[in-house]
Amino acid sequence: MPGEPDQWHTTRVRVRYCECDPMNVAHHSSYVAWFELARTELMRNRGTSYADLERAGVLLMVTHMDVRYRSPAAYDDVLEIHTRLDHMGKARLRHRYEVRVVESGGEAVGGRLTAEATIELACCGRDGRPRPLPGELRAARGV
Amino acid sequence: MPGEPDQWHTTRVRVRYCECDPMNVAHHSSYVAWFELARTELMRNRGTSYADLERAGVLLMVTHMDVRYRSPAAYDDVLEIHTRLDHMGKARLRHRYEVRVVESGGEAVGGRLTAEATIELACCGRDGRPRPLPGELRAARGV
Amino acid sequence: MPGEPDQWHTTRVRVRYCECDPMNVAHHSSYVAWFELARTELMRNRGTSYADLERAGVLLMVTHMDVRYRSPAAYDDVLEIHTRLDHMGKARLRHRYEVRVVESGGEAVGGRLTAEATIELACCGRDGRPRPLPGELRAARGV
Amino acid sequence: MPGEPDQWHTTRVRVRYCECDPMNVAHHSSYVAWFELARTELMRNRGTSYADLERAGVLLMVTHMDVRYRSPAAYDDVLEIHTRLDHMGKARLRHRYEVRVVESGGEAVGGRLTAEATIELACCGRDGRPRPLPGELRAARGV
Repeated sequence: MPGEPDQWHTTRVRVRYCECDPMNVAHHSSYVAWFELARTELMRNRGTSYADLERAGVLLMVTHMDVRYRSPAAYDDVLEIHTRLDHMGKARLRHRYEVRVVESGGEAVGGRLTAEATIELACCGRDGRPRPLPGELRAARGV
Repeated sequence: MPGEPDQWHTTRVRVRYCECDPMNVAHHSSYVAWFELARTELMRNRGTSYADLERAGVLLMVTHMDVRYRSPAAYDDVLEIHTRLDHMGKARLRHRYEVRVVESGGEAVGGRLTAEATIELACCGRDGRPRPLPGELRAARGV
Repeated sequence: MPGEPDQWHTTRVRVRYCECDPMNVAHHSSYVAWFELARTELMRNRGTSYADLERAGVLLMVTHMDVRYRSPAAYDDVLEIHTRLDHMGKARLRHRYEVRVVESGGEAVGGRLTAEATIELACCGRDGRPRPLPGELRAARGV
Repeated sequence: MPGEPDQWHTTRVRVRYCECDPMNVAHHSSYVAWFELARTELMRNRGTSYADLERAGVLLMVTHMDVRYRSPAAYDDVLEIHTRLDHMGKARLRHRYEVRVVESGGEAVGGRLTAEATIELACCGRDGRPRPLPGELRAARGV
């Protein structure tokens, strides 16, 4: 239903060694890759493959990214990335993300918040020009 | 002088191949590495080595990152990252960044804006606890 | 049994967007992260957590890496990384890796080889000095 | 002159924070990006832009990479990457690389070897099919 917020989708990742820095925690740029992964998994879950979109010449480019880091995540921690569509315009999408630590040091932990973010995407063609979101995305409300 | 904004410092990077994605432009996470590089070069220019700070047990962790992507940067483009200290609190720093394309396809170009950002850092110790910024940073006003 | 080759262990990864380059395939450096991931999963499967080893001051550093790239992997492909211990010395380990594409464009594919590698690790302490492999690793023969 | 080894070309990089790992040294995958950077700078020095080659539909894909890590490099170290063309076939190139630390902790150091490598590239078209190296590369002997 239009106007209703989309439901959260959850993706799990384990923090890779190469994603950590000398502070012994996940580097803040690693989250950017996880957010990207999480929104493509959300799309897949709603029936759209971002890989297919790109093959069809539809690109989604990040235009705005706002990330708040709440607490560190360590190497080998298991994270849940909760993602939901926050806004869909004619040629724009905005998602909300929450990243929570669910396993640390081999033990289950209670879902401590490590970061939260809002990221906006603009739809454009291979020529870089803006274009409307494809119908399948608008139908699914699920990018 | 307290309250006066710090001057801009400029760092150059050339976009690496591995920093680009299938859209044939610099991936949005690559900018995060450039911002980090730019603020450490700003610090170095003001007389403080971030590497020395870490060796002394003083860590600067990113707590908030807001990035607006204005236009794409291509592989092999030369970028200027303009950075200035925007705010310095007792245990926090905030920088402003502008990234401009100054060479593209082997030709000088006029400094098209590719991204701008505001990033906040919190000062903490090895134990992850907040601590005041070291005196040398506060004296230099230059992180 | 000493001298007997260790069995293959299989880890799955899906190629992330940020792991691909303007050729529209996984960048060759992305495999290096996957090999690292695969050997830590092999270790975990054999009962040893690399994270625990590091907390105990035991580091495994890469000393030699030989990778042959056989065919490209695309964004969103699902890969299987087959890993086995190839040699274990007093303070050294060597693993073999084969990376195969098992899903591409949303369809199962027959396991086309995309890369194979041999990587050697040296065991050392926090001071960077060589040290014998810990007993648990030698017992498990499973790093 | 045919058969004569090409001269060494030197590129400098400073180790970025995000290129280091919890061992507090440059992660072994970071070198892979530096080798790529170094060979494109060698090409540029010999008069060929790899960016231009790609725009003309000529791709150079890594087919074999052999890296020996000799000693660690730390965050903020300045490295020299010495690169030379080792072999040029009809559709293949092979380069040699040596990476040396020339500045560490803000002090000049004597060029300690941190890694050396041999990397082979195959020339192919946008379709992934092998194709002969372009004349300009063969003329320059400088890729």
